[in-house]
Amino acid sequence: MNTIDKRSIALHEKIKGKIEIQNKIPVDTMDDLSLVYSPGVAAPCLEIEKTPDRAYELTMKSNTIAVISDGSAVLGLGNIGASAAIPVMEGKCMLFKKFANIDAFPICLDTQDTEEIIRTIKNIAPVFGGINLEDFSAPRCFEIEDRLQNLGIPVFHDDQHGTAIVTLAGMMNASKVVGKEMSKLKVVINGAGSAGTAIAKILRCIHHNPDLCAPVQEIIVCDSKGIISKNRTNLSQVKQELLTFTNRNNLDGSLRDALRDADVFIGVSAGNILNSEDIRLMAANPIIFALANPTPEIDPELAKRAGAAVVATGRSDFPNQVNNVLVFPGIFKVSLENRCTRITSEMKLMTAMAIASLIENPKPDLIIPFPFAEGVVERINEYVKKVL
Amino acid sequence: MNTIDKRSIALHEKIKGKIEIQNKIPVDTMDDLSLVYSPGVAAPCLEIEKTPDRAYELTMKSNTIAVISDGSAVLGLGNIGASAAIPVMEGKCMLFKKFANIDAFPICLDTQDTEEIIRTIKNIAPVFGGINLEDFSAPRCFEIEDRLQNLGIPVFHDDQHGTAIVTLAGMMNASKVVGKEMSKLKVVINGAGSAGTAIAKILRCIHHNPDLCAPVQEIIVCDSKGIISKNRTNLSQVKQELLTFTNRNNLDGSLRDALRDADVFIGVSAGNILNSEDIRLMAANPIIFALANPTPEIDPELAKRAGAAVVATGRSDFPNQVNNVLVFPGIFKVSLENRCTRITSEMKLMTAMAIASLIENPKPDLIIPFPFAEGVVERINEYVKKVL
Repeated sequence: MNTIDKRSIALHEKIKGKIEIQNKIPVDTMDDLSLVYSPGVAAPCLEIEKTPDRAYELTMKSNTIAVISDGSAVLGLGNIGASAAIPVMEGKCMLFKKFANIDAFPICLDTQDTEEIIRTIKNIAPVFGGINLEDFSAPRCFEIEDRLQNLGIPVFHDDQHGTAIVTLAGMMNASKVVGKEMSKLKVVINGAGSAGTAIAKILRCIHHNPDLCAPVQEIIVCDSKGIISKNRTNLSQVKQELLTFTNRNNLDGSLRDALRDADVFIGVSAGNILNSEDIRLMAANPIIFALANPTPEIDPELAKRAGAAVVATGRSDFPNQVNNVLVFPGIFKVSLENRCTRITSEMKLMTAMAIASLIENPKPDLIIPFPFAEGVVERINEYVKKVL
Repeated sequence: MNTIDKRSIALHEKIKGKIEIQNKIPVDTMDDLSLVYSPGVAAPCLEIEKTPDRAYELTMKSNTIAVISDGSAVLGLGNIGASAAIPVMEGKCMLFKKFANIDAFPICLDTQDTEEIIRTIKNIAPVFGGINLEDFSAPRCFEIEDRLQNLGIPVFHDDQHGTAIVTLAGMMNASKVVGKEMSKLKVVINGAGSAGTAIAKILRCIHHNPDLCAPVQEIIVCDSKGIISKNRTNLSQVKQELLTFTNRNNLDGSLRDALRDADVFIGVSAGNILNSEDIRLMAANPIIFALANPTPEIDPELAKRAGAAVVATGRSDFPNQVNNVLVFPGIFKVSLENRCTRITSEMKLMTAMAIASLIENPKPDLIIPFPFAEGVVERINEYVKKVL
């Protein structure tokens, strides 16, 4: 076990839970008790019974979200189950509090059945103003999120959209650094899971108004078997859907074949799969998003020496960290404050533009704000409000 | 709207939620982030995957419970639904924090289907060390609680057992005040819902070892149609079960018929149903638990003038308040600290004995500790440990 693992276990053992409940006001007297509980509490209950939206004014619903996982695709650890996922979900809740003062509570589901998951989330929704889905494996994650969109509160799968939004933000600035127009970039995505699919969709403006941001015309998605093309057999429904807007020339072959003359590589799958030769196959001044964690697809220094103009990773110890923490606190905050019933594609796009706008002068090593940068939530709020 | 209702609404509007999430440690640096979240968090996750019980040492599970309701029987308000129940559940969570430093989170279920409720609670259980069921209507509350007893964590329906435990505690001291032996009392219970049924069972030692506490021999339960007897038709399953250990002489008739020569009246149903004449029908020095809320079965002063030796109510503005807050913080605290998988009948009985023991010299107006009394949780802990 390395040092950080040992330190993390020691810390978790010491504090036994990283978040706790706090009472917002004291309960020290019988009068306090009669106001926050029986008999006084009956009055707000009856108000909500009469006018359900009053729950936003009289309860924690206005600022509370659930961070829900079934433990099927936790970090890079895979299907470790509900209990083993608790430390991650607690950590995520801490970040909601730290960055946006949102009260987030972890719910780890002891089922991996799609129907059960959907029903359970519907059943527990009333106390929450939003649902952050976390670490559900593909392709179930798509169906679960889709089928919960009419719940009346935002349901947002962070592994898809959080990653896609920061990636788009980074791409906006990276394309400025290399002086290429974003819509004309040839983009190769390695990985067709939740993140890869969402990145392809957001770059191609599948769901949002293309007037807001010109769609990238040429995207090729690869999975472990190579380029996803019409010639492939036994493609999942998700991959078939990807084909409706990617690989317009129906290119066949390996990831290496896809990389030839590509402007951008975005890796959201396995680490250590590219070498210098691969980078040199790409067009001039290639942009590399090597987001596999903890081991990127290629060492950033190696990529640069091979000609990469901009390199981003998922790690904090290299420049340009693609970190969802730039997204979820702000996008949920503005959604809660405005009682949004969904987080729309336009809101996602505006969030990406807000994050990109925080970097005034993009440089090769500065295309994405630092996770602790000031003003991220406020900037997202400002941008997203334009499309509400 | 009366003053307390207005003050309560104003308070709820001002604070918008009575509880909030707090981070137990700061997240201010990249190092903090790497310990509480990625990549450090992977180590505790893997520990729990390998050894599931490590969740009690590495996560909030050790001190966290869910306060769950479907809003079907909230306070005296009836079936007001999930959202309208939120203020009550938040209030309950405050009391868990205040009295036992337990982190409790409200879950309001948007379903009143027994099977759905059971499945949903099973599905969300992993992050919790216990489940407090609240304000579920009878008879569903019995089945729901029963069928969740193998969940691996304590599942406790407070409206049944909380009330029953404080009532038993009060009865222990009241019988001392009047100098009668508890097992020889003739007890009339008005109300055959969750509280009435649980009170009958705990007085009769249905589930616990009678060596620990001699069972009350003669109990008569009444519902809105009068005495529950074998001559009644169309009795629910719950009432048929009550008949297996109550009304041994198969008395028929009205509540008034039952009260003749009774030593104890316990009301857990409608208010304002007894008068002075009814009290005078009872045996000498009768004990009156007029627990209907907010209006007791009889005004305590009136009952005393008619000869009642001891009067208890559910209200804070009279002596001897029967308040569940004496029970649930302590019984859950000792359960969590000892990782109990169930709250057994012996644990419930010990809790009642612990609460009774806090009154050293019972007097007519002092048979139950004040809700804010010191040392309740500690005393329960001490007593319950004897039967673990």
